[in-house]
Formats: sequence, C-alpha cells, structure tokens
Amino acid sequence: MTQSTLTRSWIASANGHSDFPLQNLPLGVFSVQGSAPRSGVAIGEHIFDLEAALAAGLFEGAAKVAVEASLGGALNAYFALGKSARVALRERLLELLSEGSTLRGKIEAQGAKLLPLAADCELHLPAKIGDYTDFYVGIEHAKNVGKLFRPDNPLLPNYKYVPIGYHGRASTIRPSGVDVRRPKGQTLPAGQNEPVFGPCARLDYELELGIWIGQGNDMGDAIAIGEASEHIAGFCLLNDWSARDIQAWEYQPLGPFLSKSFITSISPWVVTAEALEPFRRAQPARPQGDPQPLPYLLDAHDQAHGALDIELEVLLLTASMREQNLPAQRLGLSNSLNMYWTAAQLVAHHSVNGCQLQPGDLFGSGTLSGPDQSQLGSLLEITEGGKHPVELASGEVRKFLEDGDEIIFRARCKREGFASIGFGECRGKVVAAR
Amino acid sequence: MTQSTLTRSWIASANGHSDFPLQNLPLGVFSVQGSAPRSGVAIGEHIFDLEAALAAGLFEGAAKVAVEASLGGALNAYFALGKSARVALRERLLELLSEGSTLRGKIEAQGAKLLPLAADCELHLPAKIGDYTDFYVGIEHAKNVGKLFRPDNPLLPNYKYVPIGYHGRASTIRPSGVDVRRPKGQTLPAGQNEPVFGPCARLDYELELGIWIGQGNDMGDAIAIGEASEHIAGFCLLNDWSARDIQAWEYQPLGPFLSKSFITSISPWVVTAEALEPFRRAQPARPQGDPQPLPYLLDAHDQAHGALDIELEVLLLTASMREQNLPAQRLGLSNSLNMYWTAAQLVAHHSVNGCQLQPGDLFGSGTLSGPDQSQLGSLLEITEGGKHPVELASGEVRKFLEDGDEIIFRARCKREGFASIGFGECRGKVVAAR
Repeated sequence: MTQSTLTRSWIASANGHSDFPLQNLPLGVFSVQGSAPRSGVAIGEHIFDLEAALAAGLFEGAAKVAVEASLGGALNAYFALGKSARVALRERLLELLSEGSTLRGKIEAQGAKLLPLAADCELHLPAKIGDYTDFYVGIEHAKNVGKLFRPDNPLLPNYKYVPIGYHGRASTIRPSGVDVRRPKGQTLPAGQNEPVFGPCARLDYELELGIWIGQGNDMGDAIAIGEASEHIAGFCLLNDWSARDIQAWEYQPLGPFLSKSFITSISPWVVTAEALEPFRRAQPARPQGDPQPLPYLLDAHDQAHGALDIELEVLLLTASMREQNLPAQRLGLSNSLNMYWTAAQLVAHHSVNGCQLQPGDLFGSGTLSGPDQSQLGSLLEITEGGKHPVELASGEVRKFLEDGDEIIFRARCKREGFASIGFGECRGKVVAAR
Repeated sequence: MTQSTLTRSWIASANGHSDFPLQNLPLGVFSVQGSAPRSGVAIGEHIFDLEAALAAGLFEGAAKVAVEASLGGALNAYFALGKSARVALRERLLELLSEGSTLRGKIEAQGAKLLPLAADCELHLPAKIGDYTDFYVGIEHAKNVGKLFRPDNPLLPNYKYVPIGYHGRASTIRPSGVDVRRPKGQTLPAGQNEPVFGPCARLDYELELGIWIGQGNDMGDAIAIGEASEHIAGFCLLNDWSARDIQAWEYQPLGPFLSKSFITSISPWVVTAEALEPFRRAQPARPQGDPQPLPYLLDAHDQAHGALDIELEVLLLTASMREQNLPAQRLGLSNSLNMYWTAAQLVAHHSVNGCQLQPGDLFGSGTLSGPDQSQLGSLLEITEGGKHPVELASGEVRKFLEDGDEIIFRARCKREGFASIGFGECRGKVVAAR
C-alpha cells in the first residue's frame, strides 16, 4: 500500500499520466453548481467527496477526526491537527481507492461521492489564509534581479545568512482560474523626475512554490529547526504577479507593496508532505565559500532530506494562440531544488523571533529560476528587464504580459520506481485595467 | 445632544477629565472573569454592556442592527455596516447615557449593564484583523531616520508622491497590556562581516495611529479618494515595536520582517470618526516646492477637512521607577498632524491597484514624530541611533529599551467649546528573551 509499490487505483483516470494518482491524494475545497464549499480529494479526473464519504460511514478513528476537521469550506482545522491525522487519512484513502479495495462497490453505489473534476466543480482557496509571507530564497532569481541593479555584486551581504522574506497581502490570494486585472498605479517614466498614474506597463509573473502551514506556535515560542517540517501541512504552486514599473518606483525603503497586492494566484490542491516524501533530496551543497547556516537553521536530517525535487513549468497562452488553436508555449522549466533554504528553514526562521504562525498561513518560496536561460521564472529575467523581447511561436513578441495573456504553471515529481505526481495547474489570464 | 453642547452624562466618571466622556463612545470587545468576549462602549470609568442592553430592549431600528452586528466577540460585522449604522448607534447611546436620559432608571436597575472598567474586565482585540498594513507617513520620522543614513538627502525621491507603506504581520497584533517578549534574531555586530544570533540589543517603540477599515471593496475596484473616509470605522493607538539591530541586517532589499513581527500593540477602544469630527483640520500646507498629490489622492473636502488633530504622548515606566514609586516619564509629545497624508489618502492609495480591503483590516500610520526634539516618536530618533542616551529622572539612562521597561501611549483631542476626548492607553512591558 506504499507509494513505491506503484499500486493502482480502481479509478482508471488515476492511473497513467494523471497529476493525481493514488499516491498523491491532495485535499482541496470545492463546490458544485453553487453548493456550499466542502472538502474533497483529487483522484485522477475526479474529486472524492469527503463529506459524502463521511456520511456513508467510510471513516473511523483518526481518519474520521481528520475528515470532520476538513469540513466547513476551509481546511484550517484539518491543518491544525498535524501529521498523525494527515497520515491516518492518507492510509484510509489508500485503502478505499486502491485497485483491490473491498469498498469499491460501496463507493460506486453512491456515485455522487466521485465527482468529475472538469465538469461543474468549482475549486476554492483550500483554507482561510491568516497571514501570507513571501520569501526570496530562489538564489538564481535573486542573482538575476540583483545583476540588473548591481552587475558586479548581485547578492546583498545578508542573502546567504538570512532567508529573506517579507509580509504579503492575504486578502487578494485567489485560486487558479481567477482573472488578473491589470493594476493601475504610480510609475516613474524613464528619464523623468515626476511620476505618472496609469495602468501597469510591465506586468509579470513569478514562479513560486507555496507552503501551507499546519500546526502553529504560540507568540513568543520559536519553532526549532528539527521540528519545523512537522509544521508544514502541504504545498501548492503560487504565482506572485508583479507590476515591475510600480515596484521600481514604490519599493524603497520598505519593500514591494501595491506592485504585488493586486492578486496572487495559487493552485487549489494541497499536496501533502507524505505524497512528496519520495521526492525529498539532500539540500544541494552550498558553493565553495558560502557560509554555513547559523545553528538555529541547521539540522542534520533537514540538510540530508529537506530539499524538494519538483519540476516546475511556466507556459504562456496568448489570445492569438487561442484563436489559432496553438498550444501554450513553455517559457521556462525549473525545479524547486533552486531554493537556497529548505521549507523547514523558512519555518524556523519565521518563528525565531517569536512570531506566531497559524494553521492556514501561506508562504511563497520566492521565484524559483534555475541557472540556465531556459529555467527562468519571470519575464523580468527572460527579457532582462524588457531589453530582449521573447519571440513566440505564434509570431508575437513579449517584453511583459499583455491583456489576454494567460500564464499557466504546472509541476511534476518524478523518480524511478515511484509513481509520478503533479500539482494541478495554477492559471491566470490578464484582463484590461478598469 | 451634539458634542459642541458639552452635554454631560449621568455617569459621573464620564464628566471631568475622562478619556471617555459622553462625546467619545468608543466600542470595544471585553470579557469578565473568563466570560465569552462581547462588545461594549467605554463611558467614564465604566463599560456599557451592549449585549445586556440589547437584551433589555434598549435598541431598535438601525441602532439595534448595529448592536446585533457587534456581538460575537469581534466588531468586523459592525465595521462592515458603515457610517449610517455607526451614527444611529451613537445617537441612541447619547440618548441613553446623557444627563437627562429618561432611561437612566431602567439602566441603573440592571447594574450589570455598567461594568467598572478597571476591575474584572479584560479588553481584547476589537476585531479579527485580516490584513495589517504599516504606512510611513510621519514625515518628520522619515526625515530623522533618513538622516541617519543619508544626512544630505534624507527623503527618497518617491516619498512626497507615494504614501509609503508595507504589509505587516496580523497574527501578532495584541491589545494593550500584553507583555513584549524581547525577540531573538540575526544581527551584524559593528565592524564585522558575519552575523551573530541572540536577543535584540536595540529594542524600540514607534508611536503610531491605528486606522480601522470599515466597509471594504471588491478585488479590482479602487476606492475613490472622495469616498475613502467612509471606509474608515475608527482609530486607535498603535505601538510598532521594532528590533533595530535585526532590522538593519535583514531589511534589504524587501523591507522589515522579523524586526517587527514579534508583536504590535494597540489600544483596545475604537474611537469613531464621529467622535473625532470636531478635531478635523485642513491638511497642513505642504512646504514650498513640494509636489501636489496626484489626482487619485486629491479631494478638496479631504484637503480642507481630512487631517486629525490628536495629541499623542509616549511615557516610559522603568522597573526602577516602579520600585521607587516614581511616575512614568514622558519621552515625547507629538500630534497626528505630522501625517504627510490623510487617512483617506491612505485608503485611496492602498486600493488604487485593486487591492481588496476588508472590514477589520488595520493600518498603522507610521511613526508620528514632530519636528522638535520633544516630539519624537521612537528612541532611534531621540538617541540618534543610540549615540546620545536619554537621562531619566530615576537616574537611569536609556539608549534603547531594557527588560522591565513599560511603554505607555496616550492620546487626547482638545478644542475650545468641545468636550476633550482620549483614546485610552496602549501599554506594553518588555520581558526578557526566552
């Protein structure tokens, strides 16, 4: 019944190349034709309805407690239960949905418990997000952005000591599929001394991994690095939409604000630590000369096992491509191994001053570019600030995003002998400023 | 029944020099000896229990709707109702509590509806805070801090165009009276290249006005400057506790993070726009040569009437002063007229990119220092970064805060012919790092 056995599901669409095979089992919150949002599990091309399954008596013990906590349209209480509840639910779901399940008949008899993902299901934010923190731990991105300002010295002196992060806006985080209204704001035209007001002209995406906080901590108590991974409920994809021209003018001295707060998109399924377990890696060796992490960020197990090997893809689908029936074009293919710090290190750092983390808080990793031109996670990097437009297969060019452009993130974990899992999509289409 | 008539209350402690005369009537959330938190109004040295008053049939119509929305331990739903509900409740409270009230007997007969503020009442956060935004619009503070880094050019080029702000941490906002645990973190010792980890050695306060958001906006819709003041539910005092040494090392390039997120203290009473109406002023004239606000920030009524004349006081009470029975010592006396932008301008700016504001969001103004040495709102400014320690009447000196130091903010509005109102206190005592 473990992942490495490549067990199949009796739900045919979960076998083959699905993002959601039996080994994934991510939770999310959905509604059907305006119903109250409720929790479900993605399996193949279906959603397994947890509320209906609970009503049918399919859960008991810790798994039942976990499902009960997941109800009500937000997973916060389920996140708060921590790892043992998550594992109990996962084990029961594996029993219920694997090929040899003795309960297949019972589940199929109540067809409503398996809803087609694509049809009438609307996916919501999986949790009520208390605080959202955006980190900046994609070191290749930090170097690329730093180079635009300081060619000889792209990384600031604190970068390799401090997992750099800042507070983001929680109220405008939206699930995949919600349109991205082009923001208006102040920008400083090149060569001018006075700003103008109008629609953003340098709209960009940022490819990030999202990290959901599970169990929290009391204010004043730090979460030790050795326990930090236990406080993570799961992962998603995150698009940190960015208005580069607004950002350039506003961000000194206190950081990005309106250039980011108009919307942040996330993929709606929470991929658990357990599903990602086979895709853990040793933290990539720091380059010669880089400092060791300070002791509060250093844990042998985390160093040996705390990094994640997730392939991350960015695609662009323009209005013209849609009209011509062209497929979306890949803009970049990167990997979460480009994180300079592990997710556990982010948790330990965030709480080391006593800051209270709460179930349903969300972290963004920062843009996860890789070192090569084909691995970049933003147009700012691909076009070097708009200097070198991208040529598209549709015959178009892009410096930054235009109205009608849709950005699609996908992610995939692969390892010999293990079922490959995905994250589902994080999509957003740019619509004209109001 | 209006403020200018100086009407008195039949509650004796509300007359005289109370922060909470009949003309103030701020709402808050309190509990008594572990009861469920509920809403009340501060009047003199008492809390008028809104839940009990509602049960006694003292409200009807719009005032009743407002009280009903205030129940449940958080004022968010009351904030969402907007100005007309607030005004209806205020008018009814003036009727009930003024000297000539025909309902005095009925209220007094049910003594439980008037609870002594000082005794068993615990005051809570008045609302569930969705997002917290800290601005930086105290221009004298921005100049003073800028001077420490750039003596010849203290203000950055964007300062007089952009109401500078950044996202803060909502989860660690606490009401007055909660202890302030000294945070730990990374700091860079002077002259060193590598950081060390340990307790903050440069702990500071920042004197700010807090602004409670009432009615929100949909994502994508900006709030026009002419309507922005309607979206403000009230005001409080806010202490943006700051770890200067952690801040100096971490804040580039994305702004303050752990140096602020360990705790933010606020006064628990929400002083309404209606109570502050007599203390509105024209926005102080911008110095010669300063640019006009861009059109989205410019409104004639707001310019003529949008500034607030609130006297703001900082006091320090050290452990030694407590032992010697010395009174708290004033560290600064400033005024909210030091805001370079009005509260309405902050609302208009924050939402101009389509960012969604929600009832119960909180803004901090930024530190409201005045131009004189006696008007500074932080120790960073008073001691010029620790160079010139303050000498205290107790014989002690301070560069920054020490364990046992309590910081107390108070505020007062005064105008000839009008009852003076206050905000209650915002206190916090520093306790040793864990």
